[in-house]
Amino acid sequence: MSELIIWTLDWVPEGPRGFVRDLRLRWACEEAGLDYSVRTIPFDGRETNHLDRQPFGQVPFLNDGDVKIFESGACLLHLAGKSDRLMPPDPAGAGETLQWTIAALNSIEMVSVPWWFLKLSGNDDKQLTGWLGQRLDHIERVLSKRDWLAAGRFTVADLLMADVLRISDVRAFGNRPATEAYVTRVTDRPAFRKARADQIALFAAADGERARSGVG
Amino acid sequence: MSELIIWTLDWVPEGPRGFVRDLRLRWACEEAGLDYSVRTIPFDGRETNHLDRQPFGQVPFLNDGDVKIFESGACLLHLAGKSDRLMPPDPAGAGETLQWTIAALNSIEMVSVPWWFLKLSGNDDKQLTGWLGQRLDHIERVLSKRDWLAAGRFTVADLLMADVLRISDVRAFGNRPATEAYVTRVTDRPAFRKARADQIALFAAADGERARSGVG
Repeated sequence: MSELIIWTLDWVPEGPRGFVRDLRLRWACEEAGLDYSVRTIPFDGRETNHLDRQPFGQVPFLNDGDVKIFESGACLLHLAGKSDRLMPPDPAGAGETLQWTIAALNSIEMVSVPWWFLKLSGNDDKQLTGWLGQRLDHIERVLSKRDWLAAGRFTVADLLMADVLRISDVRAFGNRPATEAYVTRVTDRPAFRKARADQIALFAAADGERARSGVG
Repeated sequence: MSELIIWTLDWVPEGPRGFVRDLRLRWACEEAGLDYSVRTIPFDGRETNHLDRQPFGQVPFLNDGDVKIFESGACLLHLAGKSDRLMPPDPAGAGETLQWTIAALNSIEMVSVPWWFLKLSGNDDKQLTGWLGQRLDHIERVLSKRDWLAAGRFTVADLLMADVLRISDVRAFGNRPATEAYVTRVTDRPAFRKARADQIALFAAADGERARSGVG
């Protein structure tokens, strides 16, 4: 029986399917060849129905036997500790992978998610737009010189960075050919495609159940 | 000779003194009893004068012998690997510390920094303000039940979360007594006070030099 349990919602509307962040954890397990199972909490009442497990009311969270972790970035670093395929074991390679993993979270996503959040609400903020453009230009410069962010090979840092950059509005922001080629390269990996298809299938299967129970 | 070298700017104006993020690394080294030295790059031209070491043009970055790391969050996790004082060695405690370290970066700072950035530019965005309020309410609920975020003791997660929450505009946002007591408790630690004083002294010492060279 698998010790690794990835927790996500039991259903989401079509828009976020293929983007809910349990995908990051599924993808990492697929890359590393780690057995895992997926369990769900109800979409309805999600803001408060699992605060004991995720104090911000979000998904995913992970069980690894007795170890319980939330925050997708933290779960990814935990999983990376289990497989050289996600993070090289030498100190320099591990350090480089760690720095780019955090850069995806705190230098790119820290700008791209608020930008996207305001854009969705119709507030196309100029400051945030300028800030995002600068950050994406820096990434473009880096990716124009190499295929992978760290250690000369695919690592968990690429998994996370590509997941941050593949959001369609971010991807369409400006013309950055090296970044576009990178996102295509990373998301073309079989592990990503399987993780994405599995997530979409889970949520699609719940459509019928919700229709039958009258909440759909 | 110390192997750990923390890199920061050689000078900043008075406003950011005591808040530049090399402070996080100094603080972690002080907590852990790790020897370190501090080296600087020029403030003037900082946007482009060290892109080979920090591709977003920011500070800090860290040398640990041959290992080179940027992103303060990544540097903190690297340093935490050197000392049980920063992260407990048992898997459950390490996982809990990791999750709260990433939560400080990606659930709180991802909202508080863009909010603060827009506020500085005179755009008090309602969406971001509401989002920050929700996140801070979640933290208040957690901190009303315990003194430390992870493993029942001070860890690097508290260092980072308190550093994120101590920004004066964030601290003044709403009335959250458990959070306020937490920030006071964590920043009252001698290691924080030494790190802060050392940073301020470095930048203050450079005032005279800049005045003499006519760039001040």
